[in-house]
Amino acid sequence: PANKKLLILPGDGIGPEVMREVRRIIDWMDRRRSVTFEVKEGIVGGAALDATGSPCPDETVAAASEADAVLFGSVGGPKWDSLPFDQRPELGILRLRKDLGLFANLRPAVVLDPLADASALRPELVKGLDIMIVRETTGGIYFGEPRGIHVNEQGKRVGIDTEVYSEDEIARVARVAFDIARKRSRKLTSVEKANVMQSGRLWRAVVGEVGKAEYPDVELQHMYADNCAMQLASRPKQFDVILGGNLFGDVLSDLAAALTGSLGMLPSATLGAMQPSGKRHALYEPIHGSAPDIAGKGIANPCAQILSFAMLLRLSFGMDEDAQLIETAVEKVLAGGLRTADIMSPGRARVGTTVMGEAVLREL
Amino acid sequence: PANKKLLILPGDGIGPEVMREVRRIIDWMDRRRSVTFEVKEGIVGGAALDATGSPCPDETVAAASEADAVLFGSVGGPKWDSLPFDQRPELGILRLRKDLGLFANLRPAVVLDPLADASALRPELVKGLDIMIVRETTGGIYFGEPRGIHVNEQGKRVGIDTEVYSEDEIARVARVAFDIARKRSRKLTSVEKANVMQSGRLWRAVVGEVGKAEYPDVELQHMYADNCAMQLASRPKQFDVILGGNLFGDVLSDLAAALTGSLGMLPSATLGAMQPSGKRHALYEPIHGSAPDIAGKGIANPCAQILSFAMLLRLSFGMDEDAQLIETAVEKVLAGGLRTADIMSPGRARVGTTVMGEAVLREL
Ligand SMILES: CC(C)[C@H](C(=O)O)[C@@H](O)C(=O)O
Ligand SMILES: CC(C)[C@H](C(=O)O)[C@@H](O)C(=O)O
Repeated sequence: PANKKLLILPGDGIGPEVMREVRRIIDWMDRRRSVTFEVKEGIVGGAALDATGSPCPDETVAAASEADAVLFGSVGGPKWDSLPFDQRPELGILRLRKDLGLFANLRPAVVLDPLADASALRPELVKGLDIMIVRETTGGIYFGEPRGIHVNEQGKRVGIDTEVYSEDEIARVARVAFDIARKRSRKLTSVEKANVMQSGRLWRAVVGEVGKAEYPDVELQHMYADNCAMQLASRPKQFDVILGGNLFGDVLSDLAAALTGSLGMLPSATLGAMQPSGKRHALYEPIHGSAPDIAGKGIANPCAQILSFAMLLRLSFGMDEDAQLIETAVEKVLAGGLRTADIMSPGRARVGTTVMGEAVLREL
Repeated sequence: PANKKLLILPGDGIGPEVMREVRRIIDWMDRRRSVTFEVKEGIVGGAALDATGSPCPDETVAAASEADAVLFGSVGGPKWDSLPFDQRPELGILRLRKDLGLFANLRPAVVLDPLADASALRPELVKGLDIMIVRETTGGIYFGEPRGIHVNEQGKRVGIDTEVYSEDEIARVARVAFDIARKRSRKLTSVEKANVMQSGRLWRAVVGEVGKAEYPDVELQHMYADNCAMQLASRPKQFDVILGGNLFGDVLSDLAAALTGSLGMLPSATLGAMQPSGKRHALYEPIHGSAPDIAGKGIANPCAQILSFAMLLRLSFGMDEDAQLIETAVEKVLAGGLRTADIMSPGRARVGTTVMGEAVLREL
């Protein structure tokens, strides 16, 4: 098969460590599964700031745009915390989302059977949990204008952000969510604050219209964001697919992830629009951050990064079988009792990043 | 002592039912504790819409403004769900907050010992949980201008909201939170998204300045809202006092409440500024909604409304001893095994609204 162009952006903190385990899986696939990846590596975040003065250099954006898929690590750390707003490492990911048009962030919140006891929730409430959160990532209050801090006539500072959503922005991410719901249990929960926000009112209306016109077979439920947070924290299994804007999607997807108790296990994908050429920009990243407190210690969990690569194989390259192979390997390693520190529980064997990565490779 | 002027606004759904139990406690206090309340009752929400066409009639605002304290029930229900935006029952509470300048919403998330098993979290994670969330309630994206839905040049609808915070708005609610923290464990967590929002950046700066200048004895921690949601859902006991803007405060306080597992038990207070006259507008309400699905069935839990009244006695009237009496009575009733449906667990005695109210009264 034709070469698959992959851009790898390890970033900061534990990013490079966990990415190293993915590289070994890629090498294995090159040898055993007769797929060849054309792998490039780039810089982003604090690493890029240090090297170039920009958290997302133009060369990185260009390389990401050329690639068939981007595998992203994580960015940020105390070293860059006091830099001015326009030099935050976070701009690494924000600019990639915006410049590549990556508007649909898919965030699974899944509890694997061997890890049900890692959750803070009572096991019976999370066992078998499998939620997909679809978050809009190129609009809303993250990018709306005007924004800034100015001084008013009384000499006081005023901070302003603008939440803006057009009906087209809402409809296209809604379609992504409806499509996913259709392949699952045909149930979609759309989240906003239509009772206090105008953009929420439009969100509710447009999602309703798209559902009625194009997805009458999918059951659509509207829910206020505050209520959704409550429901997630009390009866998470009532949900299947959840759709939200950039800000609510951010908070609720992190909440859902935390409820699983296995942050170090969860991948994510952020997709752009399907282009006429059949190409679709896509970026894959673990949902955990750069975890500066444990970086360099060799104890980080590589599974989320590995599973992000599996998600990449499935969604960007249609390699379902290979994705499944990797996912099964990870599950088997967990079932066998190996645990990194983040998911450790009594009676299991505590291992570091490399041993975990090697175990997955051995299962493969 | 001088008469205390109390305005009671039962509202919709279960509001009137649970308020009835408070009325009995007020009657008891009038007789036994030689305090006289001058109680007025007003209309708000759907009830007010039906009666006057407005969810918050001017007379209600005037009566609230005259009263020493307002005890609020809850508003909303399916009957009014399809009304235009400017006739939502929610305007009942939003207008009262705005017109009375009720900017500081205090939301305790407390797990009473007898109810530790009502939480979805594992008991050891929530036993003894006692968090106070301070939420700004007259600013931010709830009220910022411009806001609305318009049609752009391409004929597409665009929804807009504006998040605005001035340094004064941030500082005054921060002081409320710092004052509370000072009386508790001297630890305050301030929440925003300073990494993506300009108002969040200002929020972080101003809270930091107020802390440094006026509360050097309080340990201040800044946390992103998404991370706070994660931390609440995994290790809630790390928090003591949490401060947030209108929107994050809304979602996070509901999340914290849900984690306790006893929504039907939680009161809240919303305070205005202390006026030169020594008067301070204040509104007290249970955090549960109008619960239209169980309204009229006599099964709603009256405890949150009763505890809201206790909070009123303490914060508006300085009647600590009476407040404590009521709180202790509620705890004793729970310890005795009585449970309404919402907090029912095996081996307890399930009772309705009136029996629960009577039991509290009997303890008194
Ligand atoms: C790093 C930060 C800007 C980002 C966000 O808020 O979107 C992060 O929380 C995420 O969810 O990817
Ligand atoms: C009723 C609604 C407008 C309100 C809000 O969002 O503030 C509610 O959720 C609350 O927290 O009191």
